[in-house]
Formats: sequence, C-alpha cells, structure tokens
Amino acid sequence: MTTSGFKLNHSMLRVKNPKTSLDFYQNILGATLIETFEFQAMGFTLYFLGFEAGLVDQMPSDRAERIQWLANQSGLLELTHNHGTEFDDSFDGYHNGNTEPKGFGHICVSVPDVHAACDRFEAMGVEFVKRPNDGSMKGIAFIKDPDGYWIEIFSPVDLTNVILEHT
Amino acid sequence: MTTSGFKLNHSMLRVKNPKTSLDFYQNILGATLIETFEFQAMGFTLYFLGFEAGLVDQMPSDRAERIQWLANQSGLLELTHNHGTEFDDSFDGYHNGNTEPKGFGHICVSVPDVHAACDRFEAMGVEFVKRPNDGSMKGIAFIKDPDGYWIEIFSPVDLTNVILEHT
Repeated sequence: MTTSGFKLNHSMLRVKNPKTSLDFYQNILGATLIETFEFQAMGFTLYFLGFEAGLVDQMPSDRAERIQWLANQSGLLELTHNHGTEFDDSFDGYHNGNTEPKGFGHICVSVPDVHAACDRFEAMGVEFVKRPNDGSMKGIAFIKDPDGYWIEIFSPVDLTNVILEHT
Repeated sequence: MTTSGFKLNHSMLRVKNPKTSLDFYQNILGATLIETFEFQAMGFTLYFLGFEAGLVDQMPSDRAERIQWLANQSGLLELTHNHGTEFDDSFDGYHNGNTEPKGFGHICVSVPDVHAACDRFEAMGVEFVKRPNDGSMKGIAFIKDPDGYWIEIFSPVDLTNVILEHT
C-alpha cells in the first residue's frame, strides 16, 4: 500500500506571543510542550505540543531520537512564532478564518465532560464563541485561544446526541 | 488532573467541492472516511477523515457507537462543505492562511519516505509549493490540496536532519 504509514502529524497556527499561547495550551488545555525549534537566523521559533496523556514518559531523552519520535506522532499542534510580533504595536494579529476571507475553521479538543470543562474555562477567564447550552447544538462549545483561533469543545456522548438529533 | 482525557480530536477546513476533496484525501493521501454528517436544514455537510492504519477494522458498526468512538480519536481531519459552493461561479474559493490576512498555516502528513511519497504525488499531478530538494530545508515538502490549503510532507529522519542542522 503506497500510503502505508501516512499520519496526520500536526496542524500549524501562527501565534503573536508564544508566552501567552504556551500558557493557554499547557495550563488551560493540558497540552505538553514536546519540542521547541528556534530558527534564529530565519527569525522564527516552532513549538510542538501534544495532548495525549503520558507523553512526557514516552518521549526519548536523546534530542535526535525525540525529534524522530515527534515526527511519528499524530494529532500534534505546531505554533509558529515570527520573532518580534509580540512587541510590534503595528501588528494587527492573526486571522482566525471564520470571517472573510474564510478557510480554516477550528481545532477541536475532545473532553470527557463538556460542562465541567467549560465551567473551568469560564472560571479561568477563557473567551467563549458559544457556550454548551447556547443555540440548538447543545453540548458543543467553542472557545477562543489567545490569538482568537476557535477551539471546539465536545464530549463524546454529547456530540453523539447532537449528531443523531440533527442528521 | 482537571484536563485528564483531553485530546486534539480534529482540525476543520472548509472545502468547495467535497467530491474533489474526498478523492484527494482518500486516494492520494490514504485517509479513511469515518463518518459523514449531513445537516440538511442548515445547508452543510461534515466529513470526518482519519489517517491511522486499520481504522476500518476499529470502527464500531453501530452508528451511535461509531460517533462516540470518532469523538475519542486524535488527529482527525474534518472537511466542511457549505452546500452549493461547488456550483457557484461567483464563489472565489477559500483562503489558505498563507497570504494576508495570515493565520492558519498548514496540516502536516508524516510519511515513511518523503522522496518516494513526493515522486508519487508528482506522478498523480499534485501541485507543489515546495519540493523536497528546493531551498535550504532539504527533505521537507509542501503540497496543495484541491482548495489550495498547504500540506507539509516530511519523513522522520529527514525532519530530524533539518532541525539539527538549522536550530
């Protein structure tokens, strides 16, 4: 099979301020920072985050082995920081794809309990696009990351109920 | 741990023509169509694709169970089709995030052999943004999907060499 071993390794989003974004993805969404690649001469840094449990214990300690391991994972998030944007008052920020011109829509984090997760996000000051009880799609929420990218939040049971009701 | 069980379930991209996109992701990139959710009244359909091997054998045959299973996966791709775009001559297509206004950058498919994979893409008429031997980042390629979204292609060994050389 010519596509054997193909994996969806990551999705990449540009971020204005890596400190703010890493705090959000690690402390609010529980992601693990796997690797940081700083391309000093080219003026950008890449941050690779994973969401599976136990990643810290799985990662090889040798850097070359860890990068190969990273490249064999699925479902990672890559954040790209173009140096200087965080201090640039003339920088308008990034486009989240949900206003014109549209394209990319969102990433989605599946959680065991969407209501408990969203109560915690609310208490931590996270901005919502849609709370779980808003609209007709009960149990599906959308929050914003620090750059305004949308993150869908659902739990498997609630998603199933919505899909079976509407399709 | 309050974020226990959190997973990066999917990334969502809007597509103009689902027939063209499904052909591309299934036949060129080897993805498996897991589920199709048609929201007829709301005028859109969602297609969920997975890239791991053996998904067809893992998927529960009962639809409700399969949706719950889908919601527990990592690293899926969701394609959203707003009905009618494929026939709308005034529709300009979607924005890939790599020209202004920038934001989302790409998805990435890891492959065992980037050169073999790219030779096959070339033979199948896939459009390249960067071939593996272009530029200073040898072994990393970018192709375009039918809507123009960028897909990074690398293999673990080549990525590791590039990272160790440049960072």
